[in-house]
Amino acid sequence: MASNQTIIVVGCGRLGSLLANRLSSLGSSVVVIDRAETAFENLSPEFSGFRVTGDAAELDVLRQARMEKAGCVLAITSHDNVNVMVAQVARTVFGVPTVMARVNDPSREAVYREFGIETICPTNLSAAAFLSALRGPGEAG
Amino acid sequence: MASNQTIIVVGCGRLGSLLANRLSSLGSSVVVIDRAETAFENLSPEFSGFRVTGDAAELDVLRQARMEKAGCVLAITSHDNVNVMVAQVARTVFGVPTVMARVNDPSREAVYREFGIETICPTNLSAAAFLSALRGPGEAG
Repeated sequence: MASNQTIIVVGCGRLGSLLANRLSSLGSSVVVIDRAETAFENLSPEFSGFRVTGDAAELDVLRQARMEKAGCVLAITSHDNVNVMVAQVARTVFGVPTVMARVNDPSREAVYREFGIETICPTNLSAAAFLSALRGPGEAG
Repeated sequence: MASNQTIIVVGCGRLGSLLANRLSSLGSSVVVIDRAETAFENLSPEFSGFRVTGDAAELDVLRQARMEKAGCVLAITSHDNVNVMVAQVARTVFGVPTVMARVNDPSREAVYREFGIETICPTNLSAAAFLSALRGPGEAG
C-alpha cells in the first residue's frame, strides 16, 4: 500500500492497541475504532493517530473513520463475527485494497479466506509456537 | 523430554484442545485439565489421553493429574494469573522439567520469564504476523 494511505485498526484491546502503537511509531497514519472509550487508554502517549468511538458494525461509524480513503483495514476485535463482517464491508462497500482479519476459531479460517479476506489466527500461531518449543514431542532431549 | 513422559495441558479451550489433540495424535501421553467438563467436547474423538475435571489452582487437582510424574506442563488457560501460578507450582512443588505458560499480556511476559517459565504470548505472535503481512507499513506496494 502507498505510504500516505491510512491504516484503520478496528478494536483497541491488547492486540489492536499494540498494532496501532507500533504502526503509528513507524510513521503510518492510523485510525483506531473501538466501542469503549476506555479502550483507548491502551494507546501510548506517543500515538499520533485518530480515535473513533463507536460500534464498527454500524456503517456510520466506519464512515466517520473515513474508511473509503483507507489503504488498509485490520479487523481485530476479540469477536470473530464482528471481524469478518467489518472485513467484508471494508472490501465490498468501501473498496479498501488491503483487508486483514483476526480469526480466533481455527475452524473458521478457511471459510473466511474463501471470502478473499486475509486472516491471522492467534490460536494456530500459538499452537505452532508451543509445538516448536517442545521441539518435536516424543523426541529425546 | 523422554518420549514416555506425560504432557499435562492445563486449559481445554481452543488452544488447549488443539494442542492436546495434536500431541495425542503425535503419540504423546496427554492429560488435560479443565474446570468445565463441557470444555472436553473440544477434544477430537481420536484423543487418547486422560481428562481431569477441576480447578488447576487446587493442588489436589494437580495431584489427581499426577503432575509429579509429568515431563512437561503447558499452562494455557485464558487467564494469565492462573497460568503463571500453575507453572510455578509445576516447577517448584512437582519438579516438572519442562514448563511453559501462555501469557496474553505482553507487558507481563518479561516478568514471567524471570521466574524461569518459558512463555508464549499470542498477542505478540499475532502482532508480528500482522506486521509481517503488511510487509513493512509505509513501503510502496
